[in-house]
Amino acid sequence: MLFIVDMKVNLPPDMAPERAVKLKADEREMAQRLQREGRWRHLWRVAGSYANVSVFDVESPEQLQEAISSLPLFPYMDINVRAVCRHPSSIHEDDR
Amino acid sequence: MLFIVDMKVNLPPDMAPERAVKLKADEREMAQRLQREGRWRHLWRVAGSYANVSVFDVESPEQLQEAISSLPLFPYMDINVRAVCRHPSSIHEDDR
Amino acid sequence: MLFIVDMKVNLPPDMAPERAVKLKADEREMAQRLQREGRWRHLWRVAGSYANVSVFDVESPEQLQEAISSLPLFPYMDINVRAVCRHPSSIHEDDR
Amino acid sequence: MLFIVDMKVNLPPDMAPERAVKLKADEREMAQRLQREGRWRHLWRVAGSYANVSVFDVESPEQLQEAISSLPLFPYMDINVRAVCRHPSSIHEDDR
Amino acid sequence: MLFIVDMKVNLPPDMAPERAVKLKADEREMAQRLQREGRWRHLWRVAGSYANVSVFDVESPEQLQEAISSLPLFPYMDINVRAVCRHPSSIHEDDR
Amino acid sequence: MLFIVDMKVNLPPDMAPERAVKLKADEREMAQRLQREGRWRHLWRVAGSYANVSVFDVESPEQLQEAISSLPLFPYMDINVRAVCRHPSSIHEDDR
Amino acid sequence: MLFIVDMKVNLPPDMAPERAVKLKADEREMAQRLQREGRWRHLWRVAGSYANVSVFDVESPEQLQEAISSLPLFPYMDINVRAVCRHPSSIHEDDR
Amino acid sequence: MLFIVDMKVNLPPDMAPERAVKLKADEREMAQRLQREGRWRHLWRVAGSYANVSVFDVESPEQLQEAISSLPLFPYMDINVRAVCRHPSSIHEDDR
Amino acid sequence: MLFIVDMKVNLPPDMAPERAVKLKADEREMAQRLQREGRWRHLWRVAGSYANVSVFDVESPEQLQEAISSLPLFPYMDINVRAVCRHPSSIHEDDR
Amino acid sequence: MLFIVDMKVNLPPDMAPERAVKLKADEREMAQRLQREGRWRHLWRVAGSYANVSVFDVESPEQLQEAISSLPLFPYMDINVRAVCRHPSSIHEDDR
Repeated sequence: MLFIVDMKVNLPPDMAPERAVKLKADEREMAQRLQREGRWRHLWRVAGSYANVSVFDVESPEQLQEAISSLPLFPYMDINVRAVCRHPSSIHEDDR
Repeated sequence: MLFIVDMKVNLPPDMAPERAVKLKADEREMAQRLQREGRWRHLWRVAGSYANVSVFDVESPEQLQEAISSLPLFPYMDINVRAVCRHPSSIHEDDR
Repeated sequence: MLFIVDMKVNLPPDMAPERAVKLKADEREMAQRLQREGRWRHLWRVAGSYANVSVFDVESPEQLQEAISSLPLFPYMDINVRAVCRHPSSIHEDDR
Repeated sequence: MLFIVDMKVNLPPDMAPERAVKLKADEREMAQRLQREGRWRHLWRVAGSYANVSVFDVESPEQLQEAISSLPLFPYMDINVRAVCRHPSSIHEDDR
Repeated sequence: MLFIVDMKVNLPPDMAPERAVKLKADEREMAQRLQREGRWRHLWRVAGSYANVSVFDVESPEQLQEAISSLPLFPYMDINVRAVCRHPSSIHEDDR
Repeated sequence: MLFIVDMKVNLPPDMAPERAVKLKADEREMAQRLQREGRWRHLWRVAGSYANVSVFDVESPEQLQEAISSLPLFPYMDINVRAVCRHPSSIHEDDR
Repeated sequence: MLFIVDMKVNLPPDMAPERAVKLKADEREMAQRLQREGRWRHLWRVAGSYANVSVFDVESPEQLQEAISSLPLFPYMDINVRAVCRHPSSIHEDDR
Repeated sequence: MLFIVDMKVNLPPDMAPERAVKLKADEREMAQRLQREGRWRHLWRVAGSYANVSVFDVESPEQLQEAISSLPLFPYMDINVRAVCRHPSSIHEDDR
Repeated sequence: MLFIVDMKVNLPPDMAPERAVKLKADEREMAQRLQREGRWRHLWRVAGSYANVSVFDVESPEQLQEAISSLPLFPYMDINVRAVCRHPSSIHEDDR
Repeated sequence: MLFIVDMKVNLPPDMAPERAVKLKADEREMAQRLQREGRWRHLWRVAGSYANVSVFDVESPEQLQEAISSLPLFPYMDINVRAVCRHPSSIHEDDR
């Protein structure tokens, strides 16, 4: 099932640079693992913000919670979740 | 270029039923035409609301404006638009 | 899977009384059917408002959308949906 | 009487890890004690957030205040409380 | 138990004057009955608005819901409810 | 004249405990002095929050400002003030 | 005592023109009477809106309520009231 | 030309007392200089808050920006600006 | 002097078509006159909304008020105004 | 294509002065480079705030993201982006 997830990252500007670099590298690795596993189906940068809009494709709200809370940047993000489903007017087969 | 568009439909509950049926049929036809033309790339229903989350793939903000304002339900919708771009951590080829 | 659903009813005060009575009776019947089928697990009145807090137990966001949009008062309600899952500190077996 | 309580936890990301571990363990212990005593009737994790939705079953607003302010994470939480009561359309005996 | 209730009245300006006069007279009668019965303990006008702040003293959220929803102006009001309890620093005997 | 005052206390969770204890004791003393002098007429705890709803009875906005800004917790509070007056439907003599 | 009052007028655009003209003339007359009596001390138009910012100088919240609710446009306005008092850094004698 | 300016001061409660005293003295001096020069025409304390409502009388938005950003407390304030002009119903000569 | 003005048009969807056509034609004529006179310096459509962002170049807030309130769509618009001035980092001569 | 960008700067008041001076100088240099390259077409200070309203003229949302995230003050800003396009009533050739 699909969830639209908005994530806004609020890294404290005075975080030690090496710590920020490490966090972002870890975040990237975890994000790519979740994408390869098929759970993170789309990932877009919001133009002009340190924020993204994502589409998760998971088997349950539990799996969504597990995926999102495993992100290294989770403690630094404002997150909004919306459950979505197939729209009756969609003609795209993958708009499940 | 991609835009994430949130649409919330506010049809007046006392609209004449035949008028509402006609409007929705026209909306569906236009939505499917825009999907076939490749400009409306994803269309999902927000679970529990008369609302959708969409991804538009257009050549310019003008084309986005043209597409959205051509929708029969346009006068009845609250619409929010966010320009997005490729996320550096995305591994999906079509997350342009 | 469980969803917490907040519903606020906005019936126009000048609706014809017989129409309002009929709508509410139909709403009640549908609400009780969904409860008997196990899809509407809890239903509480918010004290002092024409509003409720509900817990839906459905198999998918599609089923949630189907249940909520079938309610006769659906066109008159502001609705907010939150997907929830088991909390690691819960000791209640039915807090799935 | 029942209260729907929304809790959002805002632990500072730079809290010493051992302090956070201790706080969460204490929170868990208190949450489970309140559940065993019957005052915390439901506890769900909001999918994708460090937040929960809870149902408290207490004898008075005083008892609610006492329960919530006894939580070790109380100083770190945004809390919203709604008093609820039996809904005339509910068929569940325990939806008091 | 005590509840602080904020009520904002939104009468449509084009309501027939005799209807508005009747509604307000009925509201006044019901408000005074609830005050005489001890359930509506304080009632103040917010200066400069068609709004009031009230203190209800009831036996349960059910009784609060019953009192408020019995008001003739109930369909025209935005209502906010907060459960309160004795403050540890209060010296007033009746600040239960 | 009467003012309804909402106060939400935001003590930093990492304040030195002895400092917090001292501040709260001073706050209590000042709150009780203002109550004894008749300027702080009601004081209720909002159930589930570190917040109160209060009724001040003062001779002028100046006196309200003087009372509130003298509170030791003043620098830590979000405060909202509403001037109220006698409601035409009130039957309570002390709802001035 | 002084109150800063923000008023935003929301006249329905489809009001009969003669009715609107009459209402505005009556409003003007009442506004000028209150100014002549000294109760409405300042009145400014917010540039670009059908709104004003005003300073009322009254003897009590009751008198403020009486003045504002006597305005013919009162049923059509969103109104916000703030009690103010002399600022310790003011050098203007009339900034009471 | 006139601007209504709302200022809310957010001094960190843990600022060194001598620093706060100095800042406030400097603020007072600058505020009084701007008042003497005629640019800060009214200055009122909002009762119950560390906030003021002010009327600036300047020759241009540039001069407003220059005046406000010269205030020692500028980095600690939330500021809202509204351009105002003469109201057609005003009878006060100085409500330019 | 320059003002950034956001305008959101809320035409009732059930307005008689000929009335809407007339209003929009009148609006266009007035908007173009104000542009030719140099008072409406920029006018952009917000993509996906019946809204615009504009830059007005006027001699005073009075002139801004006069220009905006002369628009035929004025009664149907939500309008937000911000006074701006030259930015110290601007290199554009016409960013007065 | 054009984007209206609102930027609000939130520099921590206790930042070391030399660090703030350096950041602002770097910001200025980058802002002027982007203006010279034609990507930052307008830049205005919001009167009375540490904020600006800007018009960016870029080839894609990617280029907007690249420009904004390259700003030294980017980690300290709240940023809002709106895609705009030519308005049918504009008579200015450069209101693309």
